[in-house]
Amino acid sequence: MTTHEHDTAGSATAPTEHVVVVGAGFGGLTLIRELARKRRRGAPVEVTVIDRNNHHTFQPLLYQVATAGLQPQDIGVSLRAILRRHEGVHVRLGEVVGIDHDALEVEMADGGRVPYDRLVIAAGGQSEDLGIPGVAEHAFGLKWIPDAIALRNHVLRRFELASARPEHRHDGTLTFVIAGGGPTGVELAGTLAELVDLVLRRDHPELDVDNVRIVLAEPMEQLLTGFSEASGREALLALQQRGIDVRLGVGVARADAGQVQLTDDEVIPTATLVWAAGISAAPLADVVGVELGRGRRIPVDGQLRVEGLARVHAIGDIAASLDRDGQPLPQLAPVAIQQARYVADLVVAEAEGSTRKPFRYRDKGSMATIGRLDAVAELPGRIRLRGVVAWIAWLVLHLFMLVGFKNRVGVLGNWVWNYVTYDHSARLILEQDAQAGDLAEPEDTLKSS
Amino acid sequence: MTTHEHDTAGSATAPTEHVVVVGAGFGGLTLIRELARKRRRGAPVEVTVIDRNNHHTFQPLLYQVATAGLQPQDIGVSLRAILRRHEGVHVRLGEVVGIDHDALEVEMADGGRVPYDRLVIAAGGQSEDLGIPGVAEHAFGLKWIPDAIALRNHVLRRFELASARPEHRHDGTLTFVIAGGGPTGVELAGTLAELVDLVLRRDHPELDVDNVRIVLAEPMEQLLTGFSEASGREALLALQQRGIDVRLGVGVARADAGQVQLTDDEVIPTATLVWAAGISAAPLADVVGVELGRGRRIPVDGQLRVEGLARVHAIGDIAASLDRDGQPLPQLAPVAIQQARYVADLVVAEAEGSTRKPFRYRDKGSMATIGRLDAVAELPGRIRLRGVVAWIAWLVLHLFMLVGFKNRVGVLGNWVWNYVTYDHSARLILEQDAQAGDLAEPEDTLKSS
Repeated sequence: MTTHEHDTAGSATAPTEHVVVVGAGFGGLTLIRELARKRRRGAPVEVTVIDRNNHHTFQPLLYQVATAGLQPQDIGVSLRAILRRHEGVHVRLGEVVGIDHDALEVEMADGGRVPYDRLVIAAGGQSEDLGIPGVAEHAFGLKWIPDAIALRNHVLRRFELASARPEHRHDGTLTFVIAGGGPTGVELAGTLAELVDLVLRRDHPELDVDNVRIVLAEPMEQLLTGFSEASGREALLALQQRGIDVRLGVGVARADAGQVQLTDDEVIPTATLVWAAGISAAPLADVVGVELGRGRRIPVDGQLRVEGLARVHAIGDIAASLDRDGQPLPQLAPVAIQQARYVADLVVAEAEGSTRKPFRYRDKGSMATIGRLDAVAELPGRIRLRGVVAWIAWLVLHLFMLVGFKNRVGVLGNWVWNYVTYDHSARLILEQDAQAGDLAEPEDTLKSS
Repeated sequence: MTTHEHDTAGSATAPTEHVVVVGAGFGGLTLIRELARKRRRGAPVEVTVIDRNNHHTFQPLLYQVATAGLQPQDIGVSLRAILRRHEGVHVRLGEVVGIDHDALEVEMADGGRVPYDRLVIAAGGQSEDLGIPGVAEHAFGLKWIPDAIALRNHVLRRFELASARPEHRHDGTLTFVIAGGGPTGVELAGTLAELVDLVLRRDHPELDVDNVRIVLAEPMEQLLTGFSEASGREALLALQQRGIDVRLGVGVARADAGQVQLTDDEVIPTATLVWAAGISAAPLADVVGVELGRGRRIPVDGQLRVEGLARVHAIGDIAASLDRDGQPLPQLAPVAIQQARYVADLVVAEAEGSTRKPFRYRDKGSMATIGRLDAVAELPGRIRLRGVVAWIAWLVLHLFMLVGFKNRVGVLGNWVWNYVTYDHSARLILEQDAQAGDLAEPEDTLKSS
């Protein structure tokens, strides 16, 4: 491993601390940039980030890639491109398969080893099938850009199939089931309806798109359960006005090839199940060597340190960090970002012989789009916004959070284009694993792994 | 098949002729738009286009997607998006597997059948391994967007592998062999060198990119054989100045996992062979039922009619159309476009009881970029342009030929961005078929499949 100069000799003052960060999502990326900033001001740290992807994924907008409103590259940005301006920050592509706590080394799937003085696990979450039969095999997830591309290709292909073969117009080919009524499920259902209404209706004049059915199943009695009841009701109304069949108090009982069974026993013929219903820790949690909490999350103490491991922290979706009431914090970007800032501060403080008070999460609110020019936002102090104002707040915040000038320009450009032209121009079917021209039968296409 | 209203009853004057076009490349797309234009003026035609992809691919810029200078969507445009404004034009996604000349029906891989009155085969070409062992298994082609994405991912991954594992810095991991010194090979070699020099040098400070080796092997004694000797020499010098190892009079003898053997018996350890050395007709040629010519191209007469089939034409790369000297016309976009205009004219003329003189190709010249702000262009009348002037001509022509306003804006925007920032921002590894984080060993990665 020579991708970094590991200065164990150190300077005259403090020895340089080599911080290894696993994962470059919201938490990992914030942490790296904070550490790089502190390093420029003289903090004795050097950073290596390890990720399975060569890019940071802006997950909040994945649903817009899945519905052809944004291009994949708009929401991804090369890690080396954003980190190369920082001296003392190294990128290592690969998958972590083990941690050698004695040797202080991370073990890579490719056989390499990366030494650390301090390790921060920020590997995020993954879709969780909650043990429901068939979900792992048949459902589309929505965590990474290739997931979104696969879903986009699949949806567009359903319409092509129904256009080409009339016998597939009433057999579930044009039925789309989304499991989970959180922000992802709500936003995906809304933009999918928009894609059908504004774009596919004109693209496929031979189809009666009023026969398209979008079902959103949420096991709780409210949409957007992290929000107030009022926001949940508004989301419900907005989706119903777009013709979406919202089922509250109903989950998925099982998924099979060509159909989905709901917990109220209804069987829906469909070739498409999107899983936005559960999230658990990334598989990396399993190799840390500690007992995991609910959702396989890694338990951490008030300093976000993994229980019993002085040199290892965990932040973001993979960590089970408790709030003042002893409840685990939600798996949201703001949590990961605030934790990253805290750990950056703590690591440098400790390297310099100081320490920091325990982490405390400050809720800054939540927001979700529920339609064209329409969103709900809830801010601290029970401030609730709705409609265009909330939508503009949502837009500005997301542009601001996006990494990379070019990505901001690209996303804003696409949004303006889509808004003005009523178009979703990213609707190319680009498949690397399937035969081009392969119009698979619905039996095969409840995602065959 | 009800994707179109097949009006065999016809109007009081001429019955409507249903023209089926297979393939939406330069030829097919030009033909469809010409027919749609004539239809608006009253010509009795209706059109169905069949393609394996749901988009038109702007093949001349594929090499820029492969080298992360353009995003995939920049050079693809949805067929339904560009054709939906035309009444009487239908899109059918799928693969043609047979032609029933008696029933006048095209047979689709999905079991469907598409009836025609007139059939135009414009399915283009495919990479041709010329019978050289190992090429079909191990080489990257560059015909479709997924090819370009696969090559981009692969190149970026070679650099990640060499960064992560120092033992892969001198074993051929960073050696890239391009077979074929036509415009595609020359342009790809040039932009690959640019990607390495301008971008990867800064992205991978731990690598000595001077160890990167790009080999361009051309069996003839000149680069750009369709051009003059002077242009070939200029291309050679320009590439050599960029450090590209150009081998003239040398072809590929065989490709194996991890190495390529040249016809001069040199063995080059490499994980990357790009095949830009041969093109033959698309597989559709095999099912037309006529004896094929060189490169499996479909022989056509002066009216671009398939020999012996009154209702079937072939145009573009899949057709062997002869010039005045009895030589087959080159497989170039301008040939396909001129043939498309001719056939559109002929079909309408014949539907109206008239006819047309045989097709005649008019050479309008050729151009290729050979570096940053540098190109060669040859126009009729022995006019030769070189340097910035030729490059601007190349740029304007390509923007003009691109289909879709948004694509033009996207391509121009990316070019300006890349030029100003010395960046190739599309360098995300987005793989649908591979494990994320999988740093395959070079033994596996002379493209397995």
